[in-house]
Amino acid sequence: MDELGVDVIEAGSAITSDGERESIRAIASAGLNAEICSFARAHRKDIDAALDCDVDSLHLVVPVSDLHIERKLRSDRESVLRKAVEATEYAKAHGLIVELSGEDASRADLDYLESIYRATIEAGADRLCFCDTVGVLLPERTAEIFQRLRSLGKPVSIHCHDDFGMATANTVAALRNGAMQAHVTINGLGERAGNTSLEEVVMCLENLYGIRTGIKCNLLYQISRVVSKKTGIPVAPNKAIVGENAFTHEAGIHVHGLIADTSTYEPMRPEQVGRKRRIVLGKMSGRAAVELALREFGITVNEEQLNEIVSRVKELGDKGKRVSDADLQSIADTVLSRELKPRVLLEELTVVSGNRVTPTASVKLILDGRETLEAGAGVGPVDAAVNAVRRAISGVTDIRLEEYHVDAITGGTNALVEVWVTMAIGDRSITARGAGADIIMASVEAVLEGINRLMLLEDR
Amino acid sequence: MDELGVDVIEAGSAITSDGERESIRAIASAGLNAEICSFARAHRKDIDAALDCDVDSLHLVVPVSDLHIERKLRSDRESVLRKAVEATEYAKAHGLIVELSGEDASRADLDYLESIYRATIEAGADRLCFCDTVGVLLPERTAEIFQRLRSLGKPVSIHCHDDFGMATANTVAALRNGAMQAHVTINGLGERAGNTSLEEVVMCLENLYGIRTGIKCNLLYQISRVVSKKTGIPVAPNKAIVGENAFTHEAGIHVHGLIADTSTYEPMRPEQVGRKRRIVLGKMSGRAAVELALREFGITVNEEQLNEIVSRVKELGDKGKRVSDADLQSIADTVLSRELKPRVLLEELTVVSGNRVTPTASVKLILDGRETLEAGAGVGPVDAAVNAVRRAISGVTDIRLEEYHVDAITGGTNALVEVWVTMAIGDRSITARGAGADIIMASVEAVLEGINRLMLLEDR
Repeated sequence: MDELGVDVIEAGSAITSDGERESIRAIASAGLNAEICSFARAHRKDIDAALDCDVDSLHLVVPVSDLHIERKLRSDRESVLRKAVEATEYAKAHGLIVELSGEDASRADLDYLESIYRATIEAGADRLCFCDTVGVLLPERTAEIFQRLRSLGKPVSIHCHDDFGMATANTVAALRNGAMQAHVTINGLGERAGNTSLEEVVMCLENLYGIRTGIKCNLLYQISRVVSKKTGIPVAPNKAIVGENAFTHEAGIHVHGLIADTSTYEPMRPEQVGRKRRIVLGKMSGRAAVELALREFGITVNEEQLNEIVSRVKELGDKGKRVSDADLQSIADTVLSRELKPRVLLEELTVVSGNRVTPTASVKLILDGRETLEAGAGVGPVDAAVNAVRRAISGVTDIRLEEYHVDAITGGTNALVEVWVTMAIGDRSITARGAGADIIMASVEAVLEGINRLMLLEDR
Repeated sequence: MDELGVDVIEAGSAITSDGERESIRAIASAGLNAEICSFARAHRKDIDAALDCDVDSLHLVVPVSDLHIERKLRSDRESVLRKAVEATEYAKAHGLIVELSGEDASRADLDYLESIYRATIEAGADRLCFCDTVGVLLPERTAEIFQRLRSLGKPVSIHCHDDFGMATANTVAALRNGAMQAHVTINGLGERAGNTSLEEVVMCLENLYGIRTGIKCNLLYQISRVVSKKTGIPVAPNKAIVGENAFTHEAGIHVHGLIADTSTYEPMRPEQVGRKRRIVLGKMSGRAAVELALREFGITVNEEQLNEIVSRVKELGDKGKRVSDADLQSIADTVLSRELKPRVLLEELTVVSGNRVTPTASVKLILDGRETLEAGAGVGPVDAAVNAVRRAISGVTDIRLEEYHVDAITGGTNALVEVWVTMAIGDRSITARGAGADIIMASVEAVLEGINRLMLLEDR
């Protein structure tokens, strides 16, 4: 995030746990450019924990709605104000930068909120923050509120949640009307429906309003991938900017336009956010898209052949399938009546696995007509099977497995498993698919399909 | 969708493929309340295909930006206008309701757009549509545009894409400023970053603006699940309203507030959209959350024990783990020094699988001290192993596997696999987790953990 160019990193909430403190401390001492901040309530122990981690600043959160004050804290407006002032004074006396945050501010009495803001500014608060804790703000109301808060004379931040899908719009509205900082997260992570997405706010400001944010936009995709991997929280394929499909085109008219001029169907250049354009084939694919894809594999077709291939691609798409590179080539082979026999055939696969046995597989392949027998072990049955296949072909090709992906499996233990692999040789790569209720067979099927297709491309 | 209460169902684009026509036809003849619509370009063959499917209406799309007209169509404004009028006349002459849509309207000259709208209204168009084809609209501009379009005297729809995360805000802005219809999709599906989410727009109007939409909100979650399953496109856990975590609470202060009053941290009642509140434990969980969870399992603890359990939950959370029901109970057992020996132990598991063998597993369990040997077959190795376990325990308990879920696997064939199961007996259910590089062992581990925990709860 530091490399990305963010100004402040809220590294955690120091009071939370030992592990949390350890990681905040590590971030604070990493010599980063960003200001390192800890979340804290208006409790001395929270502030002490933050001090103990050697952070630069505090995101000091005080409930400001009557609902929170009365129901959650069982307190009253006056006591909360007093505590906020005391906590601010304590934090300032210990050298911290203080951002005083009104929790549930969007459901609070604005006069009371302003009185807390003014009292804590007097106590030394450096910045303020307006929290839309349950995501009920609307852009027009946000604009009004921030115009009013300008009179405070201190920088005010906006902190939104996305419960109604309005977080980005509200955050941008605040920034356009006087907010000096926005609280955002990579991939829009956060409680419930999450907080505002960094990537959406940045690209919106940069491309739609022409405002430079200082963020290195070309790192946005990469950091999104890292965060998704480390947290284990997937990003939806249709998530703006960082979703798998955000620069993927299927519909016929879209691809037709793209070929003429990419800006017809692209809101921004994919390279701007560190990505590449991807054209996938499916039921909506027209002639233009299919011809483009075939050309990439060096396959030339005439008018009639193209029509037939398009119609078969649509047929596969009608079954609800994404069409992989290998699928397209196999269709082209059939239509062109090419005698392209796969060089590798699976004769026999046996996998043994369990709690007292190292997962082990034996595989018998027919490789260029010759029977090849190999065995492999692995950390699990799929790994063992794929290792056996890799060893069996290693004598004749350098094809490698670049990526192995299984879609989430939901339902029962008999649910359909879909495996996607990317196989590569040199700098040429290809996607292939396998599916079935047996994850081992689906995986081996995908791998063999990828191997055969790459071999055919190499032979050509 | 008809049951949900939508007014118009755009069932597809009839020209696309045979399968597409078949499904549009099926939808059109299903006797639904909604108006059934087909997408069409201003080509006679597109309209004929739609007529052939017996739809009620046409979403007739005509490019209106110079970029699209000149670069994609290699045409000019006048020809496009003429074609739009001809297509409208043709469709009207054949009895269709026509919604004339300006593609890429947000990048078009508004005067030209208005001239197309007026000419096609004269030709019989019933409704118009403003398409933000590449998602570059902003709420304030949307408001201005729709105020201007009011003078047309015909209903105008808004059609947004979410490339900058602004689709919901723009759609709502249009509806608030004169738009009579919104094009939306379940889960925000659509090209690239997708179209506007139905669920976000509906709940925003209903709850934040107090506008009744006629949509049965309590079906929103259910339809989201169906669409995700049928399309195979996952919904992000942090997606507003329908995401897995949209009503899940972890942070300590959040749960603390929730216990006092759910509205402190809930933007809407989960039941309103057909969902339930979920409290999960992790590093941010405070005493309140842990005590609440323990109480649900009938475990009473004193102050000191609670503190110790909370600290161990945080420890597990620090490792980046979600804490399952079974994890919490196991921690509680240790802290309470309870002699709760699991009733089922795995002695031996062997699974054989391959392309010429029915996946088969043998399992030896120690069940209440007695060795039990069973075998099972299945559609895949995991299914076989779990079936063997189920058979082995079937003599002593009615515990069933309610849900089996594997997170998406990404990386290599040796990547970590995380399995979550929900096991149930009667109307009591429990979640358990298994993890490892071997999907069979991780699955069996999760199932056995769930069985043991449920048995202990039953015994109590």
